[in-house]
Amino acid sequence: MVRWMREAGLRVTVDQMGNIFGERPGAERLPPVMIGSHIDSVPTGGKYDGQLGVLCGLETIRALEQHGIRTRHPVTLAIFTNEEGARFQPAMIASGVMAGKIPLEDAYNARDKDGLRLVDELERIGYLGAEPCVPRPFRAYLELHIEQGPCLEEEGLAVGVVDGIVAIAWSRLTIEGVQDHAGPTPMRIRHDALVAAAEVVTGVRRIARELGGDVVTTVGNLTVRPNIVNAIPGAVTLSIDMRDPRDETLDRARTLLDRVVREACDREGVRGSLEHYWRVPYTPFAPDVVAAVERAAKASGARHRHILSGAGHDAQYMAAIGPAGMIFVPSRDGRSHCEEEFTGMDDIEHGATTLFLAAVDLAGRV
Amino acid sequence: MVRWMREAGLRVTVDQMGNIFGERPGAERLPPVMIGSHIDSVPTGGKYDGQLGVLCGLETIRALEQHGIRTRHPVTLAIFTNEEGARFQPAMIASGVMAGKIPLEDAYNARDKDGLRLVDELERIGYLGAEPCVPRPFRAYLELHIEQGPCLEEEGLAVGVVDGIVAIAWSRLTIEGVQDHAGPTPMRIRHDALVAAAEVVTGVRRIARELGGDVVTTVGNLTVRPNIVNAIPGAVTLSIDMRDPRDETLDRARTLLDRVVREACDREGVRGSLEHYWRVPYTPFAPDVVAAVERAAKASGARHRHILSGAGHDAQYMAAIGPAGMIFVPSRDGRSHCEEEFTGMDDIEHGATTLFLAAVDLAGRV
Repeated sequence: MVRWMREAGLRVTVDQMGNIFGERPGAERLPPVMIGSHIDSVPTGGKYDGQLGVLCGLETIRALEQHGIRTRHPVTLAIFTNEEGARFQPAMIASGVMAGKIPLEDAYNARDKDGLRLVDELERIGYLGAEPCVPRPFRAYLELHIEQGPCLEEEGLAVGVVDGIVAIAWSRLTIEGVQDHAGPTPMRIRHDALVAAAEVVTGVRRIARELGGDVVTTVGNLTVRPNIVNAIPGAVTLSIDMRDPRDETLDRARTLLDRVVREACDREGVRGSLEHYWRVPYTPFAPDVVAAVERAAKASGARHRHILSGAGHDAQYMAAIGPAGMIFVPSRDGRSHCEEEFTGMDDIEHGATTLFLAAVDLAGRV
Repeated sequence: MVRWMREAGLRVTVDQMGNIFGERPGAERLPPVMIGSHIDSVPTGGKYDGQLGVLCGLETIRALEQHGIRTRHPVTLAIFTNEEGARFQPAMIASGVMAGKIPLEDAYNARDKDGLRLVDELERIGYLGAEPCVPRPFRAYLELHIEQGPCLEEEGLAVGVVDGIVAIAWSRLTIEGVQDHAGPTPMRIRHDALVAAAEVVTGVRRIARELGGDVVTTVGNLTVRPNIVNAIPGAVTLSIDMRDPRDETLDRARTLLDRVVREACDREGVRGSLEHYWRVPYTPFAPDVVAAVERAAKASGARHRHILSGAGHDAQYMAAIGPAGMIFVPSRDGRSHCEEEFTGMDDIEHGATTLFLAAVDLAGRV
């Protein structure tokens, strides 16, 4: 990527979090229009999530060069480190540091599953940069990304004009039952952590059904101890991920979750400890950026609509420190974070053109 | 153990499966009374399961020596390899080979989680013996073991005269759903392997409630892929362990299990593949051995009752090739396969005395 950026004439810098920036100067010394995304992925993930936004950003830069277009504001391609959180927790750690939401030291000390620290790994690969990772002024941050849901495809649309990102709440439940032998232990004296956990999993699904609307609820991670055929599970930990456009809905979901856990644990006579450890409110994007994206989508000839993002993105943190917006392109069958992830080239072209036009619009053609 | 056995005057031999035998000669050249158990354990297991039977067997030998008791039949202390199946599958692999139920070559090629073969590990520790591991004649096989259930303790008894071992059925279920992103994927298009698995877990519990009696049903192992907070689980594998004294009850349980799986998978629109891969019928112990154990329990002054074993033991395979029986001692709170596993010394003394008296009875005092 960095070689391609330099070949495209960009001045490349790397900041303290390994975020990569490639600036195409503007006609005036003004804050840049930043366009970008991330190039990390998830285990057995696809090749569009993140990468597509970075490559369409590079293509925007190349197109500006090829057409000899000068802009008032610089246009800067941005690549954020570790967006997925697959290797280092939390997700979006590098834009989080830039937005001042995550202390640099905490991010540096994040460890992967082998115990390696993020800061040491950045140094090892030569991407522990000198630029401070702090809020920087920008005219706009624009991120093209796959939808990761089925809506655009279902309606035959090529582009989504993203109005904002849904509110997200993550919780962690630890259930302590009584580990015992699966044979000689009568049913009447069992306190099976997995039976309680199973009732929580179906209960979490029921919460979405009860609340209806756009709320989504997921148990994605569940780990059993000792996890052998002939032992009654003594302990289970599981994750609960709940999302909705409205913060009030998440408040109600959390109340329902508390009740689901209490009832499941009481029924089985096990101890449940529920921790609500991460919550981000609804993130609206900047009206002028959203308007620029909509004009660009229209001008590109793409069939489009307004849409919300169900997933977190670096744009979420960037929205905290400046005007941000996103462009979605369809995901086949709504699938992502899997090897089947796919977006057709026609849709990508419409999305890339929208990104190009919105960037020129916001950067101001000279 | 082997040093203690030699110090007790036993002639120690090791067979092709690493089973250890220490013979105390009888007055006549007759098949031995074998007494023993195993010395392997489970992860975070206790120190009584298996070990207690071996140590009480050694104590029986020492008591015979100390009291200068001669028996017509030899008395042989036996220690079986890998009874738990915690490292190499299946459980009771070495008595299984001896009983001709598991081919020696299959056992040799069993691999642990690091890919090491059982035969290579036996060789490495110097316990790949020369004696053929084949059915050998014995007057009786007697195994003292902890009950691993609550019945003796609840009734204030010290000794259980074991009539037989319940029938056991193991099944494995693989559920294939659709892995997707937990955020932008609406509830209406989800095919969540874990939601279906959770319904199976609660369904397996319901089977025990419906059938009642002594049946026990357990999901002990459950593994989720990709098992991350923000991905809808694409696949789950889980184990089902069902046991009952009556084979017919297990047949009914299996029919109910088939239905539970079908309904759970249909409801979520996922694919379930259920494999019933292991089944052992009810194993009755030899009436004359059971009678000898009962006489011995009475003579020892132990409060006792007849009981069934809910767990598999090496005695199960030994019963296939000769007269076998077991002696149970109580497990505090019915717990085993955990660090809280405990049996009080008074109960152990009653059990050991019962073992000693039954062994002398069956071996014939000269």
